[in-house]
Amino acid sequence: MKIAVVGLGAMGAAAAGNLLRKGHEVRGMDVRQAALDALSEAGGAPHATIAGAVTGADAVVCFVVNSTQVDAVVSGPGGIAAHLDPAAVLIQCATVSASFIRRVGEQLAPAGVLLVDAPVSGGVRGAAGGTLTVMASGPREAMARARPVLCEMGSHVHDFGDELGAGSTVKTINQLFCGVHLAVLGEAIALGKRAGLDPQRLLEVYGSSAAASWMMQDRGPRALQDAPPSNSTIDIFVKDLALVLDAGRDLKFPLPIAAAAHQMFLTGSAVGKGALDDSHLWEAYPAPR
Amino acid sequence: MKIAVVGLGAMGAAAAGNLLRKGHEVRGMDVRQAALDALSEAGGAPHATIAGAVTGADAVVCFVVNSTQVDAVVSGPGGIAAHLDPAAVLIQCATVSASFIRRVGEQLAPAGVLLVDAPVSGGVRGAAGGTLTVMASGPREAMARARPVLCEMGSHVHDFGDELGAGSTVKTINQLFCGVHLAVLGEAIALGKRAGLDPQRLLEVYGSSAAASWMMQDRGPRALQDAPPSNSTIDIFVKDLALVLDAGRDLKFPLPIAAAAHQMFLTGSAVGKGALDDSHLWEAYPAPR
Repeated sequence: MKIAVVGLGAMGAAAAGNLLRKGHEVRGMDVRQAALDALSEAGGAPHATIAGAVTGADAVVCFVVNSTQVDAVVSGPGGIAAHLDPAAVLIQCATVSASFIRRVGEQLAPAGVLLVDAPVSGGVRGAAGGTLTVMASGPREAMARARPVLCEMGSHVHDFGDELGAGSTVKTINQLFCGVHLAVLGEAIALGKRAGLDPQRLLEVYGSSAAASWMMQDRGPRALQDAPPSNSTIDIFVKDLALVLDAGRDLKFPLPIAAAAHQMFLTGSAVGKGALDDSHLWEAYPAPR
Repeated sequence: MKIAVVGLGAMGAAAAGNLLRKGHEVRGMDVRQAALDALSEAGGAPHATIAGAVTGADAVVCFVVNSTQVDAVVSGPGGIAAHLDPAAVLIQCATVSASFIRRVGEQLAPAGVLLVDAPVSGGVRGAAGGTLTVMASGPREAMARARPVLCEMGSHVHDFGDELGAGSTVKTINQLFCGVHLAVLGEAIALGKRAGLDPQRLLEVYGSSAAASWMMQDRGPRALQDAPPSNSTIDIFVKDLALVLDAGRDLKFPLPIAAAAHQMFLTGSAVGKGALDDSHLWEAYPAPR
């Protein structure tokens, strides 16, 4: 297939690499020249404009950072919708709110654009290995065209029906788990240090106990490193837990655990640690005595 | 070995069964006749008094529910300390605070009682299978005598040094993870229902995503059952998260995530759901529309 990836950050670049290794013709667009150079080296076709990347593609995968960027790359005269082939599908993977993706769907419907709401979980490792968990929904025709691409990207492709927004709600609840699991990891490491215990030994214990989580296994080693390289910062969870809380507001539903976790990510950001890897949320807590 | 198990509730009975299957001579004591009958059927020797169970044992494993019960079974003329052989070791497995077990140690020290602080994680399944995670500390001589028993009970035996209380602090932080992971499971299921999504499908998704946890895997199926049988209730986590918060107070350390989770377990208890399985914390949230 001819697949365009718009947004070649950590997730988009890893997904593009996976699609290239699986033999697809991959075009990519990003505003950063370094990202285009990296795609070119990996065997993909870099484009400086959306028009160049999208025209003639069977599917366009959108891997930008947030809803503002989705708006910027999808709409307008230079956007994806203006250049997408009528038979091609737009697969939106960025983490956005259900209400936002529904609005995008309403905007694009008059032009007949095929859109799938398809956020993912599994991080850069999942994107690079094609082992993402995909939480998808959208009109049946759009989903039928997107499915072969989604199955290349993910090992678990979940279809939540024909309504845009269902996929994003499922992803939002996924982020509720991820954000809270990260927050309690931070709180536990901070408490352990305060109690004079070695956090490395603690994580060895909890990795095999009822305390274990995917997040602990993935982020635990980075939590113990000084200034680890990061693809997922404290500020990203400031954003993602805000999406969770917004979903609660839309549904008039209280989310006290998510709210407490959000306050700790905001604390991290407020004390100047927003750009740290999210495994370092323990730095948002008071120092050990 | 001759091993006495004091407290034959879900955990104690399962641990006794495991020790019997491994060929040890197991005596048991409980105030409930049904628990003694069950031990007898499993091949153990039931005793109605602590003196009967403890006298002549190489090790006594204490599996009662909380610190009040530990005080009741350990101290006084009819207690474990009064009947323990000088060469035998007392292995305290109930979840208690570090400050409490240190106090017990100080009380027993003049009589030369060998005591190990050895809380466990892994639930009834871990106790029955001998695959518990044991978080132990205590004087070296006590630990040396306890180790063979601990290694029969658990697949991961962690030694946190010679100070009583270290094991219980490690267990307390374990319960911080467990309580918060359960709370976010409840919050996510409640939010999903409110959003009109099928919780069973949600848990299928999150079981393979970055949202996964030991608690989700273990409690998820029970969360979806009507009134599942329970060994671990909402009220138990009212107690365990109180221990976590008490540890924070002792150390003058803020634990906002634990505090929010505790409030939700208290809410569950306050609306009359305290005896429900802890997987049903979603019932503490408002009903779906």
